[in-house]
Amino acid sequence: MKKDRTVLQRRQVLAGGGAALATIGLTLGGRSAEAAGDTPPQLPAGSGPKPLPAYVSWKDSSSLIVHSGTTIETKRGAFGTGIVTPAEQLYVRNNLPAPDASILADRDAREISIEGVKGPRRLSLRDLKRMGVETIATVLQCSGNGRGFFPAKPSGTPWQVGAAGCVIWSGVPVRWVAQALGGTAQGMLYMTGTGGEKLPEGLDPKSVVVERSVPITAMADALLAWEMNGMPIPLAHGGPLRLVVPGYTGVNNIKYIKRLSFTERETDAHIMSHGYRVSPPGTKGDPSQPSVQEMSVKSWINGPGTDGKAIAAGEVQIHGIAFGGLNAIAQVDVSMDGGKTWTQARLVGPDLGKYAWRQFVLSARMPVGTYVLASRATDTAGNVQPEHRHENAGGYNNTSWTDHAVKVNVA
Amino acid sequence: MKKDRTVLQRRQVLAGGGAALATIGLTLGGRSAEAAGDTPPQLPAGSGPKPLPAYVSWKDSSSLIVHSGTTIETKRGAFGTGIVTPAEQLYVRNNLPAPDASILADRDAREISIEGVKGPRRLSLRDLKRMGVETIATVLQCSGNGRGFFPAKPSGTPWQVGAAGCVIWSGVPVRWVAQALGGTAQGMLYMTGTGGEKLPEGLDPKSVVVERSVPITAMADALLAWEMNGMPIPLAHGGPLRLVVPGYTGVNNIKYIKRLSFTERETDAHIMSHGYRVSPPGTKGDPSQPSVQEMSVKSWINGPGTDGKAIAAGEVQIHGIAFGGLNAIAQVDVSMDGGKTWTQARLVGPDLGKYAWRQFVLSARMPVGTYVLASRATDTAGNVQPEHRHENAGGYNNTSWTDHAVKVNVA
Repeated sequence: MKKDRTVLQRRQVLAGGGAALATIGLTLGGRSAEAAGDTPPQLPAGSGPKPLPAYVSWKDSSSLIVHSGTTIETKRGAFGTGIVTPAEQLYVRNNLPAPDASILADRDAREISIEGVKGPRRLSLRDLKRMGVETIATVLQCSGNGRGFFPAKPSGTPWQVGAAGCVIWSGVPVRWVAQALGGTAQGMLYMTGTGGEKLPEGLDPKSVVVERSVPITAMADALLAWEMNGMPIPLAHGGPLRLVVPGYTGVNNIKYIKRLSFTERETDAHIMSHGYRVSPPGTKGDPSQPSVQEMSVKSWINGPGTDGKAIAAGEVQIHGIAFGGLNAIAQVDVSMDGGKTWTQARLVGPDLGKYAWRQFVLSARMPVGTYVLASRATDTAGNVQPEHRHENAGGYNNTSWTDHAVKVNVA
Repeated sequence: MKKDRTVLQRRQVLAGGGAALATIGLTLGGRSAEAAGDTPPQLPAGSGPKPLPAYVSWKDSSSLIVHSGTTIETKRGAFGTGIVTPAEQLYVRNNLPAPDASILADRDAREISIEGVKGPRRLSLRDLKRMGVETIATVLQCSGNGRGFFPAKPSGTPWQVGAAGCVIWSGVPVRWVAQALGGTAQGMLYMTGTGGEKLPEGLDPKSVVVERSVPITAMADALLAWEMNGMPIPLAHGGPLRLVVPGYTGVNNIKYIKRLSFTERETDAHIMSHGYRVSPPGTKGDPSQPSVQEMSVKSWINGPGTDGKAIAAGEVQIHGIAFGGLNAIAQVDVSMDGGKTWTQARLVGPDLGKYAWRQFVLSARMPVGTYVLASRATDTAGNVQPEHRHENAGGYNNTSWTDHAVKVNVA
């Protein structure tokens, strides 16, 4: 039985109390860190689904799979057709535990250090809000989304499709901030963001800090954002201030950002130098391997019947989402026979821009039987979603349409 | 001090308990009804802002003004720049108390009767979901939004700007449903929706039922919607099924819809025949007067400084929203001197279509002083937001830019 949001959220508050907070384990930087972060909450055996941790107790538990206190994904069947992912359903993946909620006590007083510009300085969120406002929609997706489909079972959260969402951000364009401070210093090639999480004592900070570098060209559309989906960014999603790098995987969108630096080289923080690398199977990440950064064309089907329950025969609306990473979506094709034949789907709803996802729908007759539903997206640059995943040790960047196909029973 | 959403929502649950539910007064149809619906909750004197009623306890109380158990508006200063109004902030205005939450127990089983078509029949929400899906963004605005600016103080809720939001809906286009049932019957001129609220006993149903007619042409873009902002429609906003008539004021977007009928004439329900009429001051609504239906071009400024607190001198980003009703927004001009001089503002964020609102921003230097900030929108048909309100007894359709101007102090 489905419950009204009121009831659900009240239940969550009761269920997601202080005890759950204690279960948020400390994680370490990089890929091994992600595995460490998956320590499940300590629950009595047989107690059913894991409860939402307190810092996200306001989320809709019926839409979510709680892997651990810092890794929570959206159920495939919970994605609607409404183009924007509501905060209540949006996945959570924190490399370190979220800071204490006290950092939201006075959001406007939050400070960030801007470095690698001609006139480096500290700016408060209050200052940033006076420098300009832009609003964009982006797909936010964990680098490891789809890892659960790798047969080799790489370490890290076995995400299926739900470590992703389409989110609206408001903030100041990074390029305006850089311009206001005299422009970037000579020779800078990267934009490096540093997260404001509290670092565990007794460890080399470089081994745990969430600090990532992206090519300086990514500055063109990047924001220092204070609003998500029309409200101040929640703590779980990086509030009060988050770096948003459209088209780049989640880890590059630095939460609780405390420093934004234009640099000559990539940071040597472990999470950059060894974490999130596309490593050959059986190897460990190192700086010689490609970093997980830009997303590429991908799609999947969300309904109907993706929850494993049989659906009734007849006319159905097969729906899902598609995005291109750095490019807009041009076309989505849907197959009902595991990829033997394809039919072009219809894109529905307002187009939120090239970094957002599109909803697609295919009207189809489905007589009694078993179907393997697949979708295959093409972006405006002509890139086609690949049939097979690119094997790698970390289970990153899975865009395979066969991996994302889903079996549906029609009774 | 601002609070994290978690804390806020937990506090709301505590504050918005069962006692508040008892304060939801029964209201009557039409304009007099709206006044009756404004009966304030019974609170001890000096107890501060009214708590959120239980059925909307999941909303963000810090963003809202609670007028009564069925009339709640968004604070002007709470509107962000994120184009879509989050459900937590969205206004509530129910002509009758919301049905019992049990109607959400099995959403897909909810039935609607489709009449005035060649093959009339009852359809379940499950049936509707198989007939097609479309997603649109619309401005949802109470007919009386801005009533609080009428000096004559018409009866009804004294809404300022916040009985409005921009919302994403998913559902099946009404025209597809009509087509599937053989098309509309000969000679039908109106689309008439009937709300599924429980009617009080002992009264003529026609005097209280929420039943409204719009011209059949409005069918072109209307939806029978089951999703709002990407999730099943909450009870407070008409779930499980709501009629969405883009460009028409809130009351025409029938909640809990149980019958959709194509009719030769407008319904004679009191809320249509006498309620929501543009009546000359001092008169009562009657069927000879224009009905409150289509919205027209309007805008207002949301920040900064609209909460009455002085802001610091310097560069600021003046922001607000604009919409055209049936037409898209072409331009918004902003004045800092109460309308003597105007500067064109920049439209920001993705364009969600002609029925949605646009965010606008003007970068301006504001030295110490007092300013009267105003905005004036122009739609793509060349209609310009008027300087003055059209006086009417009910306080409807206030689009006056002078009424919506706001005084801001810069210290």
